[in-house]
Amino acid sequence: MIPSRILGTGTVLPGPPLDNAAAVKGARLLDPAWIEARTGVRARHWAPAEASISALAADALRLALDAAGLGPEALRRLIYVTSTGGEHVIPSMASDVVDALGLHGTCDSMDLNNTCVGFLTALDLAARCAHTGAGPVGIVVAEPFSRCITPEDPRPYVIFGDAFTATIVGSGGPAEGILGARFGTDRALGNVAWMPRTGMTGEPERITFKASNRTMSDLAVSTLVKTAEDVVRDAGFTLRDIAWVLPHQPNATMLQRIVEALGIDPARGVPMVAEVGSLGAASVPASLDRLLRTRDVRPGDHILMMSVGAGVSYGALLLQVGAEGMHRFTSRRRGTLPTLTEEA
Amino acid sequence: MIPSRILGTGTVLPGPPLDNAAAVKGARLLDPAWIEARTGVRARHWAPAEASISALAADALRLALDAAGLGPEALRRLIYVTSTGGEHVIPSMASDVVDALGLHGTCDSMDLNNTCVGFLTALDLAARCAHTGAGPVGIVVAEPFSRCITPEDPRPYVIFGDAFTATIVGSGGPAEGILGARFGTDRALGNVAWMPRTGMTGEPERITFKASNRTMSDLAVSTLVKTAEDVVRDAGFTLRDIAWVLPHQPNATMLQRIVEALGIDPARGVPMVAEVGSLGAASVPASLDRLLRTRDVRPGDHILMMSVGAGVSYGALLLQVGAEGMHRFTSRRRGTLPTLTEEA
Repeated sequence: MIPSRILGTGTVLPGPPLDNAAAVKGARLLDPAWIEARTGVRARHWAPAEASISALAADALRLALDAAGLGPEALRRLIYVTSTGGEHVIPSMASDVVDALGLHGTCDSMDLNNTCVGFLTALDLAARCAHTGAGPVGIVVAEPFSRCITPEDPRPYVIFGDAFTATIVGSGGPAEGILGARFGTDRALGNVAWMPRTGMTGEPERITFKASNRTMSDLAVSTLVKTAEDVVRDAGFTLRDIAWVLPHQPNATMLQRIVEALGIDPARGVPMVAEVGSLGAASVPASLDRLLRTRDVRPGDHILMMSVGAGVSYGALLLQVGAEGMHRFTSRRRGTLPTLTEEA
Repeated sequence: MIPSRILGTGTVLPGPPLDNAAAVKGARLLDPAWIEARTGVRARHWAPAEASISALAADALRLALDAAGLGPEALRRLIYVTSTGGEHVIPSMASDVVDALGLHGTCDSMDLNNTCVGFLTALDLAARCAHTGAGPVGIVVAEPFSRCITPEDPRPYVIFGDAFTATIVGSGGPAEGILGARFGTDRALGNVAWMPRTGMTGEPERITFKASNRTMSDLAVSTLVKTAEDVVRDAGFTLRDIAWVLPHQPNATMLQRIVEALGIDPARGVPMVAEVGSLGAASVPASLDRLLRTRDVRPGDHILMMSVGAGVSYGALLLQVGAEGMHRFTSRRRGTLPTLTEEA
């Protein structure tokens, strides 16, 4: 156990939802009905081209800090997670977010990339930091996918959505926090997705898939199920004992296969991908945010999160909710705190 | 105290050393004598344009693992630190290094950027991970600056050198590890260096300095001295008590000012910048590697490391050497292990 606590979460889905017809407007080779039939994705949000990535990330952090009842000056460390990157390499994008929050030396910051597993990696690091005195830690996942896709390469184009989602992690009592975690990287599992860096290679900076949908789906299912089962077994449980299960949501068709392979009741998850698209490293934390804001998460509940991404990187993390539960989120659900627009 | 231990270190300086005359060949507006007079830099290494960045990083890790007496399969986590980035954004550069080491699921991995402070951030994280059961952790700092500079912008061009340097961090006994650390990010201190991302902005991906040398030097001196004094005071010491002091080495002229402002004997440091150039996040760990391989570091010694970079990010970390000392490094110095070529 790494004693720790999720203090607050928040998500920004930028701009209006775009349905498949709106997304493929001007790209007449793409059929909206085909997209939904093939991927299950019906809509996504894409940030306006002129929007500042770090400003959107800072907005997500403000929502999470509000849920935690904390001001930004409470943060000791900020981890900016992304698999898509930002407008610049130097300085870090994280330092822009620290500046946007108006902080001057009260917290440090770093950018972190572990493709779609980045949030779970950051959550593992944040818990260890908070437990050893370097918290609270703010994690913000920034995935501006709309800037890394083009209708000329339809497979990535039709599934990715933008999202900015934050999680505040503090220290915890002895019976709350990370019960277990498993992470790994293994290129032998495949080379599934690729985005070169224009500045070093001259190649266009667009995400391409290097494997068929079927291969990627098989990989996601097998890796997520095995990693989940390993973590749950290590903790002395079976999947039946786990109240909430939040897998990575690569697309709606794959999510359905993942849930079936896990053999769990879909009501123990928070499916979102059909309405927001594939969110990369933001997929799991966006569903965690929605879980804590809309479901009856109780003291002692276990939350299992797992993800897989290019690398191949994979990871699963089992969280135990403490005796005090998630009371601020509970009071928000009961109407004593305002509902946020993105939850409408 | 975060109990932890440096198990091994290793550095690769790629290609032959290039003196100032060789570096400015073909750029006739640049005067080698002026470069040395102004910056104190006499030489640097630039990796061949066709060299693989992750292969060089893996080479550094192999040297550090060899110093630690460990095989790569001993690693549980790999942190790839860079302020310059690599050939691709997806997957992570770290996953390439894991693959180059022949590892298949025995360790996880991530890319981390906190500009020149990235190594100290990673060392702080690695110690917390190793202490809480997620170690040993391999840190590799990869700074291929030669791919981010151009003779058309001489100030960055003449000072930066490439380096790849690795550090293996394990858990420690109660009297060894990180005695104290201070980190912060504060944009109000300045906007000193900048490298946009071509893929998102269309701008050339080259490092530019946004402040005068004098402003950058003043910032480095004041920030490093204050952060160092804070960490040392928090630990109940004064700078006089610290055996070894390893500041960031932005250029040789600045390093001299930093050492003078700290008021320490230069023999307690490991000046390298005149011979290798400014190494970004690799500056401190390259000097740590040389310290442990060439100086008489004894049990109970304290090693103070501090850095500052764009963001502005800054940090200082105070390490206490355990009762067992750095025995493998000691035996290497005594000639029972081969001397590495880059130390010659």
